Amino acid sequence: MFSRYSSGILRSLIRTMSTTVPENAAASVVATAAAATTVPKESSPAQAKQGKKSKKAEQQFLLKTPKGTKDWSDKDMVVREAVFKSLSDLFKRHGGVTIDTPVFELREILTGKYGEDSKLIYNLEDQGGELTSLRYDLTVPFARFVASNSISNIKRFHIAKVYRRDQPAMTKGRMREFYQCDFDVAGNYDTMVPDSEILNITCEGLVGLGITDFKIKLNHRKILDGIFEACGVKEEDVRKVSSAVDKLDKSPWEVVKKEMVIEKNQPEEVADRIGEFVKWNGTIREVLALIKGSELLIANASIQQGVSEMEILADYVDAFDINKYARFDLSLARGLDYYTGLIYEAVTEASAPPANASELKEKAQKEKGKSAEVEDASEYVGVGSIAAGGRYDNLVGMFSNGKSIPCVGISFGVERLFSIIKARAAKDLENLSANHTEVYVMAFGGGEGWNGFLKERMTVTKKLWDAGINAEYLYKAKANIRKQFDSAEKSGAKLAVILGKEEYPAGKLRIKVLGQGQDSDEGELIDSETLVESIKTKLDAHNVDGLDYITRLVRGL
Amino acid sequence: MFSRYSSGILRSLIRTMSTTVPENAAASVVATAAAATTVPKESSPAQAKQGKKSKKAEQQFLLKTPKGTKDWSDKDMVVREAVFKSLSDLFKRHGGVTIDTPVFELREILTGKYGEDSKLIYNLEDQGGELTSLRYDLTVPFARFVASNSISNIKRFHIAKVYRRDQPAMTKGRMREFYQCDFDVAGNYDTMVPDSEILNITCEGLVGLGITDFKIKLNHRKILDGIFEACGVKEEDVRKVSSAVDKLDKSPWEVVKKEMVIEKNQPEEVADRIGEFVKWNGTIREVLALIKGSELLIANASIQQGVSEMEILADYVDAFDINKYARFDLSLARGLDYYTGLIYEAVTEASAPPANASELKEKAQKEKGKSAEVEDASEYVGVGSIAAGGRYDNLVGMFSNGKSIPCVGISFGVERLFSIIKARAAKDLENLSANHTEVYVMAFGGGEGWNGFLKERMTVTKKLWDAGINAEYLYKAKANIRKQFDSAEKSGAKLAVILGKEEYPAGKLRIKVLGQGQDSDEGELIDSETLVESIKTKLDAHNVDGLDYITRLVRGL
Repeated sequence: MFSRYSSGILRSLIRTMSTTVPENAAASVVATAAAATTVPKESSPAQAKQGKKSKKAEQQFLLKTPKGTKDWSDKDMVVREAVFKSLSDLFKRHGGVTIDTPVFELREILTGKYGEDSKLIYNLEDQGGELTSLRYDLTVPFARFVASNSISNIKRFHIAKVYRRDQPAMTKGRMREFYQCDFDVAGNYDTMVPDSEILNITCEGLVGLGITDFKIKLNHRKILDGIFEACGVKEEDVRKVSSAVDKLDKSPWEVVKKEMVIEKNQPEEVADRIGEFVKWNGTIREVLALIKGSELLIANASIQQGVSEMEILADYVDAFDINKYARFDLSLARGLDYYTGLIYEAVTEASAPPANASELKEKAQKEKGKSAEVEDASEYVGVGSIAAGGRYDNLVGMFSNGKSIPCVGISFGVERLFSIIKARAAKDLENLSANHTEVYVMAFGGGEGWNGFLKERMTVTKKLWDAGINAEYLYKAKANIRKQFDSAEKSGAKLAVILGKEEYPAGKLRIKVLGQGQDSDEGELIDSETLVESIKTKLDAHNVDGLDYITRLVRGL
Repeated sequence: MFSRYSSGILRSLIRTMSTTVPENAAASVVATAAAATTVPKESSPAQAKQGKKSKKAEQQFLLKTPKGTKDWSDKDMVVREAVFKSLSDLFKRHGGVTIDTPVFELREILTGKYGEDSKLIYNLEDQGGELTSLRYDLTVPFARFVASNSISNIKRFHIAKVYRRDQPAMTKGRMREFYQCDFDVAGNYDTMVPDSEILNITCEGLVGLGITDFKIKLNHRKILDGIFEACGVKEEDVRKVSSAVDKLDKSPWEVVKKEMVIEKNQPEEVADRIGEFVKWNGTIREVLALIKGSELLIANASIQQGVSEMEILADYVDAFDINKYARFDLSLARGLDYYTGLIYEAVTEASAPPANASELKEKAQKEKGKSAEVEDASEYVGVGSIAAGGRYDNLVGMFSNGKSIPCVGISFGVERLFSIIKARAAKDLENLSANHTEVYVMAFGGGEGWNGFLKERMTVTKKLWDAGINAEYLYKAKANIRKQFDSAEKSGAKLAVILGKEEYPAGKLRIKVLGQGQDSDEGELIDSETLVESIKTKLDAHNVDGLDYITRLVRGL
């Protein structure tokens, strides 16, 4: 397929592609003589940027998905659907109702909600009419939804794609188009009551996916902001100092301190003071004891308020028996502007970057050349948090002339969960079929006047469909036995229904259990009239424990 | 909320909004003093187009979704999810596997695939990097997927959103962001075998949604193009004449003829000849007989080929017993460029525009003023086709250096199906709860030392969740009985579990059936140990026929 290109061009094309194309998608260069297309090939993103166009009789373009996106298919898709089902069942179990908002919002709805990350928002082209942007998360659209429908309380869940023009790390599940699975509670309720249920949902959701080696890092914005204040940070600098602290899960303290002092103009002694406190972590009650033991901190009004809320939370975390997962960690900051209270992130071992991350990153950048952006960061980043969220009491108010509806929520990162589950279940996945076919309908015959019974196979299969049974047959008028068995095996069907040249006209059908070698037995001859009933009985016998294969696989059973 | 604006500005804002905002979303003007936003309000689409910006201390913007889009929530969402489930079960029943492709594609992938409709494609802004566009349908991304993964055969389904910058008609389910539910078969198979199964899937899918008063209009591109050829249309004019004929479901012949003669430069006698043939419709065999009776037509090689394929199809349609739904209609053209064989559209009575459509359209335009675009066309258009598709044998080849994989598929228009189901089931929807809550956990007590049993309610509810039971409780430390019963009723729960001030510490819980008036009975006192078991038994008793309420509602039972 590549033969018509000079190897030099090819090498450079392939280099561009190699890190952005997912494992299961073969990217290729396409030349279309059909020329229905009128836009000529842009041979590199840089050239595309300049908008250069040149007419050619023959069209060429890269056959791939955009950077940071991928196709999902086959077994991956079956696993991901099972993860979605597990999470939406979880959300329904907790009283959630689901909503769906548009993929793009009026641009002004998103503006000013994401702090330093606003630069990662995808804009739609101005083609006349409104200015719009792809949603960056599901939280801001939810707040807009609550405000525009004047809702006073709701437990809503939303499983949908969001978009960020970020550095992708495809094999770590960090992508430009990715799913979020969000559960949020909006409404005026007693302190920490919905918050603690959200923490319980996070634990229940992860355990339900067979993930038990996680920790939920907790912090409270009022305590964190109070620490900054107590250490001497000016009010207007709090958010930018906070976003530096947010990098502590990826960078060592020295790097973060440098950012604070040099980029963010904080006196060195202020940074050092902060450095002492953000090291504290432990159980909720342990860290509360440390804070209350610090005269500097406990004198701060904001910290006092945060501490009293965390004390209430500690009680509820006990009632839900999830203390073993919780870790109060004063270094947790969360980048987004809109959080106002409790914040949290679930992490596993896979969340952290490799120990020699900075070395690997330097190497990748050296290979790429100083000017070019590294296409994929999978080698030197971790999976990151697998679920994260917090309380945001003022966001709805930004859309409703200040009439606030307090909210708290959690967002599960499905791609990241998926990469953990896939690694864990690699072996079990071999036995998984992407199809849901239960029965394969075939005809056996031959000799004079044999027409392959295509119409008869159609009629019989239709009876199965109408009874709600998943069934296929070969799309050939005449098909030999071997081909039909091969297709049946590929389809994952458990049973074959066989129309014999003599048997079928005599009102008989043969049912054979598949997967036991095609010659092992003759199957069972039944009256055609009893087909549906016989099939249903035999399929029931295949079910074990009331749980199908994929459910057990995703739960890690 | 509106008080700070002059009533003149307000009136014009409200007028702009009134037709684009869906029934369930209250649009409002928002003034945010918080001023975290930096982009000022654009007071009208026209102004936005000019890109004018002016700094204001106070931000104002319209609180709505972009034109032609809407939020989905509450019962609508429950019905739509049930429609999705019905269709994905259908697709799995026929051996389908599902895939997921990105919402945006490299722009050159979409270019030149949609004929006159290409102007409706949404582009993403060039923010550096690749040029991309939102997908216009799921078919072209599917062909790109097949080519880039070198797939030789697949039955795939895909339920996802697509985007068209078209004139919306919101209450008719014609939107700029809408779902398609597609099933396509790719691979080399015997003539009309997958095609006929796709027709059967269309019928099975609609009947499964309780829609039985539909017809599937059929035509064959080889016959249609042959008619144009036989009537004297030049080869290079065939597609544009075809796209004029495609408008016959919305406009009378005189209007279409005018387009052919004046806009598309066809001689009047050519148009008149075409006009005779595109009137023909009936059963497959009836129209085949008419074509074979015409010396002009049957002499054409392309028509001969189409006729022989339609004869095979007629047999398979008989085998599936779906002849009563099929209507061979020579006026069906389908706008898209990529079809090469059989084409079809399912229509119901709601598909057609109102009898006085052109009158209503003129009125709407007059009201709006000549220059302005009518915001919503719901008044004067029909729902349109509720499912449509066809064979496209060359599309994959456009992505794979000409290596063709023949394809045939169907796309269900969910929003349109939804609007039909919602109109039919309006009364039943009153009894539908958007929640899935089964049990509400409450505490009864009072007097000295009564603390509301919040932690105890948490512990008991947690036991239910862990057993997979959907359960809620009131997010208040202390809550009176009335409030708890009110919330239980809102949640749609069938059972209440009551923690009594004396009973609970004694190891007892009370279970009460809800929805029978709160004072009707005392409920049943059980041992706390047997809670999960008792609840499961009582919930089972609520199930009828093995089908839940929403399934029956969507099936029209």
